Amino acid sequence: MRMYDLILKKRNGGALTEDEIYSIISEYTKGAIPDYQMSALAMAIYFRGMTPEETASLTLAMAHSGDMVDLSPIKGIKVDKHSTGGVADTTTLVLAPMVAACGAPVAKMSGRGLGHTGGTIDKLESIPGMRLELSVEEFIDNVNKCGISIMAQTKNLTPADRKLYGLRDVTATVDSIPLIASSIMSKKIAAGADGIVLDVKVGRGAFMKDIENAEELADLMISIGNSVGKKTVAHITNMDQPLGLAIGNALEIVEAIGVLKGGGSKDLLEVCLVLGADMLKIAGVAKDDGKAKAMLKDALDSGRALQKFKEFIKSRGGDERVVDDVSLLPKAKYIERWIADKDVFIKDLMAMELGLIAMKLGAGREKKEDSIDYSVGIMLGGKVGDLIKKGAPIATIYANDKNRMGWAAREIKKYILLSDEPVERPILIHK
Amino acid sequence: MRMYDLILKKRNGGALTEDEIYSIISEYTKGAIPDYQMSALAMAIYFRGMTPEETASLTLAMAHSGDMVDLSPIKGIKVDKHSTGGVADTTTLVLAPMVAACGAPVAKMSGRGLGHTGGTIDKLESIPGMRLELSVEEFIDNVNKCGISIMAQTKNLTPADRKLYGLRDVTATVDSIPLIASSIMSKKIAAGADGIVLDVKVGRGAFMKDIENAEELADLMISIGNSVGKKTVAHITNMDQPLGLAIGNALEIVEAIGVLKGGGSKDLLEVCLVLGADMLKIAGVAKDDGKAKAMLKDALDSGRALQKFKEFIKSRGGDERVVDDVSLLPKAKYIERWIADKDVFIKDLMAMELGLIAMKLGAGREKKEDSIDYSVGIMLGGKVGDLIKKGAPIATIYANDKNRMGWAAREIKKYILLSDEPVERPILIHK
Repeated sequence: MRMYDLILKKRNGGALTEDEIYSIISEYTKGAIPDYQMSALAMAIYFRGMTPEETASLTLAMAHSGDMVDLSPIKGIKVDKHSTGGVADTTTLVLAPMVAACGAPVAKMSGRGLGHTGGTIDKLESIPGMRLELSVEEFIDNVNKCGISIMAQTKNLTPADRKLYGLRDVTATVDSIPLIASSIMSKKIAAGADGIVLDVKVGRGAFMKDIENAEELADLMISIGNSVGKKTVAHITNMDQPLGLAIGNALEIVEAIGVLKGGGSKDLLEVCLVLGADMLKIAGVAKDDGKAKAMLKDALDSGRALQKFKEFIKSRGGDERVVDDVSLLPKAKYIERWIADKDVFIKDLMAMELGLIAMKLGAGREKKEDSIDYSVGIMLGGKVGDLIKKGAPIATIYANDKNRMGWAAREIKKYILLSDEPVERPILIHK
Repeated sequence: MRMYDLILKKRNGGALTEDEIYSIISEYTKGAIPDYQMSALAMAIYFRGMTPEETASLTLAMAHSGDMVDLSPIKGIKVDKHSTGGVADTTTLVLAPMVAACGAPVAKMSGRGLGHTGGTIDKLESIPGMRLELSVEEFIDNVNKCGISIMAQTKNLTPADRKLYGLRDVTATVDSIPLIASSIMSKKIAAGADGIVLDVKVGRGAFMKDIENAEELADLMISIGNSVGKKTVAHITNMDQPLGLAIGNALEIVEAIGVLKGGGSKDLLEVCLVLGADMLKIAGVAKDDGKAKAMLKDALDSGRALQKFKEFIKSRGGDERVVDDVSLLPKAKYIERWIADKDVFIKDLMAMELGLIAMKLGAGREKKEDSIDYSVGIMLGGKVGDLIKKGAPIATIYANDKNRMGWAAREIKKYILLSDEPVERPILIHK
C-alpha cells in the first residue's frame, strides 16, 4: 500500500477502505508518512469529501492511535459533552456541577483555548492552586470521590489527531466537515465516555458559518458515535454573538459562579439546561426532558450545584473561597468602562471579532506556545436585544497594558453596534 | 504575505497575483516554505486550476529561480525543440543533425529518462566516450564550431521546478495542465532559445491521455512562449504506440543512425520532418513548409545530416565510428526473438507497457538514483498495421539477465497484439 496511490485514489474521487485508512493513520503517527503527503491527502479530502464509512474509519483509527481511556472503574453511565468552540461559552463550568449534583458522574477531558475561542482548562486554571494535568487514575479517583472531574487531555490521547490537526491548521485544510467530525469524535471515543452530547455552534463566531454545514457536521458525528455504541445527541446553537457576557478566563469563572448562584446570563443558563437534560437522560438519571430540567433547576435553586463546584475546586487543590469572594481571582491592572450616554439597545455583537480582541489583550493564544493572562478580557453589558440604560456600561475592558487597553477600547466600538430602536433577540437554539 | 493565506485563496478558487507567485517560488526555493504547504497548494491548484496569467507568472518565476542561459554569443536564431515524453521517441537524435546540416544552429539542453520514457542524454551517453555534462561556455563553443550541441541540464537550471516537480511526483499532483505547462516552459525559457517547437504527445504512452487535454496544454504553452517574445509552435502527435521501433538507449542510437542513412522507422522520420520544418522556419532559414521539408530531405539524402551527427559525436569526445559500425555500441549478453509462425498483422502496441518492460530490463530509471544499462531494450518488428511475414521477428528482446529475459519474453506478448486480418494504421500527427 503506497501513500502515493492512496492520495491518487482520493484525488480521483475514490473511497479509501478501512484498511487503507488504518494504515495511513498508523504510518503517519509513527512518522513513516511525511507531512507533505499527508497535507496533499488532506487537501484532496477537502475537495472530494469522505463517505460516512470513511469518516467512521478515520475516527476510529485516530481514536486508537494512542491511549484508550477506560472509565469502567467509575460507577454509572458516563456522559461527555463537547462544544465545537465559541466565544464566551462557559457552558462546561456551569453544566458539570449541575449534572453532577443530580447524581450523574461527570468525567470530562477538556482542551485549551486556541485563536478566538477559549478553553475550559485555561479558565479553571485561573483559580489559584488548580491542578488539572492529571493521570487517568487521579481522574477516575476524583470522579468516584467528588462526582465530577475535569482534566487536561493526556499527551497520548489521539496523537494522530494532534499531529494531523497541527498540519491542517497550517495548510488551509481545517474546514472540511469529515475531518472536523473525525477529529472531535476520535477524542471523545478515546476519552472513554458511554454517551456524548454535542453542542455544534453555528454563526460568525463559530467554525461552522451556516446551518446546513452545522447540520451536516452534527448528523455525521451522531452517526459515528452511535455506530460505535455510544449514545450521541447534538444541538445546534447560535454563535453569531457571544453566548455569555464574559470573554476571558477569570471573567468567565465569575460568570459561571454568577449563573450557579441564580444570576448571570440567561442564554448561558438556557444552553446548560438543554444540554444538561440530554446528559441526565442518557445517564439514565431522568426519564424525560421535563423531569431532567426540573432536576437541574432544583440543583441550582437549592445551591447543590454551587456546592458541587466548590467541592470540585477543593478536590483539585484550588482555592474554593473564590466561589464566595471572586476578588481572590487574578485581577487586571486597568479597567475601562464604555458607558451609555443615553438609553440604547444592543443591535449586534460580533462574536469572532470580540473573541479576537480578548485574545490580543492576552486572554487567548495566537500560537500554541503562547502563554495566557487569566485576568484580562471583556465583560459585556448585555446581549443583542437588551436595553442598556443611560450611565450603565455597554462593555467593560480588563487589561494589564495601557497601550493594549487604548487599542481595545477603540476597537471594541467597531464590533458592538447600538440602536435607538428596540432590536429583536436572535434565536439561541436552532435545533 | 503568509503562505497559509495563499493556499486558502487558491483553495477557495481565487487567482494568485504575480507578486504572490514570485514570493511563493522564491521562498520555496530557499526552503522558507515547507514542502507540506507547497504540496497542499499543488493539490489545490490541481482542483482549482490556474488562469493563463497565473501560469505565465509561475513559469517566469521558476525560470528565474536559477541560471538564465544567455545564448547571444551564438550567431543566428536559436530554436529549441521539446517533446512531452514518449516511448521509442528518438526524434532529437535525428532532428538535431538534420536541422544543423541545413544551417540553423541547434543548442539543446536535454533531460534524462524517468519512468517509462527515455531521455536524450542517456541515449547519447550509450556511445562510448561521450561527455554531455558541459559548462555553458563549452556548450556555446560547441554550437559555434560544430553547429550543434546537446548538453545535460545544468544543476542550477530552474531549481524551483526541480524541487516542485520532485514534490508533485510523490503527492499525485503531476497531471495538472498549468503545472505541466509551467514546468516545461520554465526550463525552455531559462535555457535561452529564441524560438520553441513543441511536440505534445497524446495517447496511452503519454502523460496526456486525450486530445482535448493535449490541445489545452499545447495552447497554454504557445501562449506562455509567445508572451515572453519566444516564437512558439506545437504539434500534437500520437503516442498510443511507440513512435519508432527501438526502445532502449543504444538501440535507439542504432535506429537514429538508420534513419539518418535513409532507412529506419517512417513514422519517426515523418515527425522529424514536421518538427524540423517548423524549426527551420522559425530560425529564418526556410520561408515555407515546402522549402523547409525539401531542405531537410536534401540534408538527409546527401549524407550531410549523418556527417553532422558524426561531427557532433567527435566534438563531444565520443567514438564517431559507431555511425559506420554499430557493433561498437554496448551489446546485451542475451538476445531473444519472438518469431512469427505465420503471416500476421500488428494490431496493437501498448506504448506505456512496452516502455515499462524496457525500463525493468534496465533501460530506464524507476527512481532518479537508479543507474542505466545502455545495451538492453526491445526492438519492434513493425508498427500497428504492418505485416510481419512468417519467420520474421515480431519483436527482439535484449537483456543482460536470464531471469529478466524470461519475464520480458512472456510479458511482451500481453502488450503486442496480432491479427490475421489487415489492420488500419492510426493517425500519426493529430494537429
